[in-house]
Amino acid sequence: MSSVKVGLLGLGTVGAGTVNLLQRNNDEIARRAGRGIKVICAAARHLDRPRACPTEGIRLTTDPYEVVDDPETEIIVELLGGDEPARELVLRAMSNGKHVVTANKALVAIHGNEIFAHAKECGVTVAFEAAVAGGIPIIKAIREGLTGNRIEWLAGIINGTSNFILTEMYYEGREFADVLAEAQRLGYAEADPSFDVEGIDAAHKLTILASIAFGIPLQFGKVYVEGITHVTREDVEYAQQLGYRIKHLGLCRQTEEGIELRVHPTLLPERQLLANVDGVMNAVMVMGDAVGPTLYYGAGAGAEPTASAVVADLVDVVREFNLEPESRVPYLAFQATALSDVPVLPMESVETAYYLRLEVLDQPGVLADITRILSENGISIEAILQKEPAPGAEHVPVILLTHRVFERNMNRAQEQMEALDAVQGRIIRIRQEQLR
Amino acid sequence: MSSVKVGLLGLGTVGAGTVNLLQRNNDEIARRAGRGIKVICAAARHLDRPRACPTEGIRLTTDPYEVVDDPETEIIVELLGGDEPARELVLRAMSNGKHVVTANKALVAIHGNEIFAHAKECGVTVAFEAAVAGGIPIIKAIREGLTGNRIEWLAGIINGTSNFILTEMYYEGREFADVLAEAQRLGYAEADPSFDVEGIDAAHKLTILASIAFGIPLQFGKVYVEGITHVTREDVEYAQQLGYRIKHLGLCRQTEEGIELRVHPTLLPERQLLANVDGVMNAVMVMGDAVGPTLYYGAGAGAEPTASAVVADLVDVVREFNLEPESRVPYLAFQATALSDVPVLPMESVETAYYLRLEVLDQPGVLADITRILSENGISIEAILQKEPAPGAEHVPVILLTHRVFERNMNRAQEQMEALDAVQGRIIRIRQEQLR
Repeated sequence: MSSVKVGLLGLGTVGAGTVNLLQRNNDEIARRAGRGIKVICAAARHLDRPRACPTEGIRLTTDPYEVVDDPETEIIVELLGGDEPARELVLRAMSNGKHVVTANKALVAIHGNEIFAHAKECGVTVAFEAAVAGGIPIIKAIREGLTGNRIEWLAGIINGTSNFILTEMYYEGREFADVLAEAQRLGYAEADPSFDVEGIDAAHKLTILASIAFGIPLQFGKVYVEGITHVTREDVEYAQQLGYRIKHLGLCRQTEEGIELRVHPTLLPERQLLANVDGVMNAVMVMGDAVGPTLYYGAGAGAEPTASAVVADLVDVVREFNLEPESRVPYLAFQATALSDVPVLPMESVETAYYLRLEVLDQPGVLADITRILSENGISIEAILQKEPAPGAEHVPVILLTHRVFERNMNRAQEQMEALDAVQGRIIRIRQEQLR
Repeated sequence: MSSVKVGLLGLGTVGAGTVNLLQRNNDEIARRAGRGIKVICAAARHLDRPRACPTEGIRLTTDPYEVVDDPETEIIVELLGGDEPARELVLRAMSNGKHVVTANKALVAIHGNEIFAHAKECGVTVAFEAAVAGGIPIIKAIREGLTGNRIEWLAGIINGTSNFILTEMYYEGREFADVLAEAQRLGYAEADPSFDVEGIDAAHKLTILASIAFGIPLQFGKVYVEGITHVTREDVEYAQQLGYRIKHLGLCRQTEEGIELRVHPTLLPERQLLANVDGVMNAVMVMGDAVGPTLYYGAGAGAEPTASAVVADLVDVVREFNLEPESRVPYLAFQATALSDVPVLPMESVETAYYLRLEVLDQPGVLADITRILSENGISIEAILQKEPAPGAEHVPVILLTHRVFERNMNRAQEQMEALDAVQGRIIRIRQEQLR
């Protein structure tokens, strides 16, 4: 049987990785898919750039519309990233009767509902395993592997750059800005790293994971997002002294009142498997009511790990080529007609434990004031760490771990504590989860 | 649409878990599968036993043939375990045009080739996610999630009983027999624990994983099998002093010469994620040439974790009900016509590093003799740990870590060392892997 013909949009890192992988493992892939898979054309911004892959047999163009309009291509792989023109190209490819594989998390998180509806109209399929956690088959695991479960929550280290920075801060005692600069040198972080370190990238991925876990529509706008830019070396160290590690998590949870959807730095007990996922690696922990805790670990980015997910999607599409669209695995795990619009909780209604660091004047009565305010707001204390003042310093750090409390109570308590004369500046506050 | 009708063979722990799960999550499962799934009949050995699930609406019988011959059932779930009559019942169900879901690892490992061929003849499908690592969707991850990769190796903690015993030996310094007795009391280990602690159960699962990873036929008879019965508290302790943990692994690897297929206790560096999988939990690490290392973690046994995999298989079967058999994901990941009969290597041709413990007379020259023998056999030493003799003892333990060497060299060296007058009894030998 002839090879399936693929058109690529984008021939950068992941595009070249995909071409290399399809060529190198051509035989194994065909043995699995039942047919070979071949890239016949690709759109790139510049035709004269050196490529990290051979381009013989691939028609190159600077015009992506040529690829999606090419009557020969059967599947379009979209690797442009971002919003437009990716959205328009993907919709047009579908209108042309082509299946789509995309690694574009922003596209799926923001325009997924529209794209899935259009795919249905066009009788084609769209696959997006590479959009979340790179090479880890996490979409498949949740969407197909845990279908017997009511998913209670999931928590993921889903941004490799942030995890690399936090890992270096932990093991090497380095400062955020210093490690970020190195990550940029090593190519782990973009020149503009804000999508990574501000949590936007993780929020895109969490949006997709939450929909698949709970059967809710994609709603990126409702994710609470906090990055790692305010995490200091000191907090990493104090957390360690208390038996915790700080990780940047995407977390969603199904509660009786609604769904929690949040991205923020989080203290995790150091014996948690998730707390020990280091460097640029990603991992997602999923709690199902039947299966209990499960964890999926692997490379979340990079040329070949991402290409691994792209090719897996290609094989899935090829294996199901002659399948009626309604027989396919539903995009968001639940049948399109069976999504439920459970409300997403505002952050004030979310309950977590907290790590607090206050800089206070080294004088009597301060701790009594603080503990009184916490107690009046229904917040009980799990641990206190009081450090010696640095030589010559007027104030001294006090670190508190609290038990679980609603965020609105903590907001009130924080305001009252910051109003105390003895408390200097803003209180550092990082959420803490036991993941049980 | 009416619910899909399922017949159960076996209504013990996993059978009851499956009934409970299908009832409790009935709504979510139907939203995912597009149709409800309902158990309408079940075969149990005794009808008067108390059940861990409600049985209203389920026709109970002691005759399993009644279930597979029932014209109403569309899918048969086989939970009998073991060889016969499971094999005959499954083949007959298929002849009757029914799809089959099984949690029976022995059945798949030993009779899988026959069963898959029969399924093809009958135009039905057979799913067996629950046969390996309980609730972890590991079959799906490898078979569908990593299809772009050449799998280089995989290593799994795939027997919960053995892992529980080794974990207790490590943390509590207890002896094998003592922990085994407790595991039996807790219900983690069977009254006859030999399948677990002798490695047979892990070998069944490894057989299946290796076929799916490498596209080779199932060949249980070629697995090298060693259990944990000879692992002592001392060895666990000495390994720990050297920075290692002892885990019982199923391991397969693709080399230029052939395929390694082996189950044995293994020293792992203590910082390996896999080394930190504790208690009854399972985990499988898979190394793909594109994706790099990935790991899948979760409960490997128990009523609801196993039922989680059974129900996921049921949903898969239902989602693909009106699919031509040849369009389905191939059972062993590779198309049936594309399996390759790569030879399985004899154990002497496998290369690993070793942990050795010798009891030697406390006299000069012994260590020189030992290191000479090792060197003559091309074995280099990574670390030596020499312990003080116990008060009054004539001999003293010497612990060695070697670099990687072919097993045939080690066999020869071991024979020569054991022939030394100063070496007492048999040398303890445990393989060591870095998993890189």
